[in-house]
Amino acid sequence: MGFFKNLFSNSDTVATASQSTPHNKLQNGGSVADETRIVFSTSRELDLYELEELCDAVGWSRRPLRKVKKALQHSFLVVSMWEERGAKRKLIGFARATSDHAFNATIWDVVIHPKYQSRGLGKALMKYTIKKLRSEDISNITLFADPHVVEFYRRLGFILDPEGIKGMFWYPD
Amino acid sequence: MGFFKNLFSNSDTVATASQSTPHNKLQNGGSVADETRIVFSTSRELDLYELEELCDAVGWSRRPLRKVKKALQHSFLVVSMWEERGAKRKLIGFARATSDHAFNATIWDVVIHPKYQSRGLGKALMKYTIKKLRSEDISNITLFADPHVVEFYRRLGFILDPEGIKGMFWYPD
Repeated sequence: MGFFKNLFSNSDTVATASQSTPHNKLQNGGSVADETRIVFSTSRELDLYELEELCDAVGWSRRPLRKVKKALQHSFLVVSMWEERGAKRKLIGFARATSDHAFNATIWDVVIHPKYQSRGLGKALMKYTIKKLRSEDISNITLFADPHVVEFYRRLGFILDPEGIKGMFWYPD
Repeated sequence: MGFFKNLFSNSDTVATASQSTPHNKLQNGGSVADETRIVFSTSRELDLYELEELCDAVGWSRRPLRKVKKALQHSFLVVSMWEERGAKRKLIGFARATSDHAFNATIWDVVIHPKYQSRGLGKALMKYTIKKLRSEDISNITLFADPHVVEFYRRLGFILDPEGIKGMFWYPD
């Protein structure tokens, strides 16, 4: 909990942590130049090609950038996660949510770059996303989970089919 | 199919049908004064108290009207269904959807007044809602169904847990 608490308390929109020494930033006296930071942002100003590259990396099928741009504009929340090393910045994670701004939010397109998986960064991204939605007084946070990530979301406190409520999809023929 | 086709082809925002003679309006020579019409609308100008009354009728717990108003304002689509008899108009059905305006929509708060259930009006309301979302080029229509309405949505073409995708909920402690 200590790591995430520090991560989120630094700033409302951007939080940083040294990746190598998460519990005590720069405890080994590292200089700023060689420090690696993980930065979260809720800014919508994303390079669509960089986002496409991230989605390509996890094997998602490509979507028209015009529609992706529209979807970002009309998402209630857009969260990006970056690795910063000196002046370099790389998009390594993403999530967004639609919402009625009052009761419900639905999280879509959660992605962590394969090279950055299994380090707790997906958990950090989701905790940041939940925190942001909670700060907007959204109490019903929902998502549709692929089978292989159901357990991941369950560990984050998401409940499967609560009281028998079932996720359903309608697709055009 | 004939009934719904007629219902939806009349107008883009409002469709009407005689309830007593759905397949051939006024075939028995009824006058306009005693005609009962079912009208659909996507206007957001709803009387919040009338909506609350409808939700009360199906036993939903009350929600602050201030938040309901905000939710309607920020829903992508708000569908209301009315019974019109002469100059009288009664709200008998409701549904709304959040969306990213590009890929996904999630339908919430589908309600039909108990006195008007079991007449195919829920089906008509959902078909109207799906048609509206499809006309906006939304291809992924989702919802969270209570156990007793899963079969209702399945008959409308909604698929339960497609490819093992599971609906999940997060609530505050």
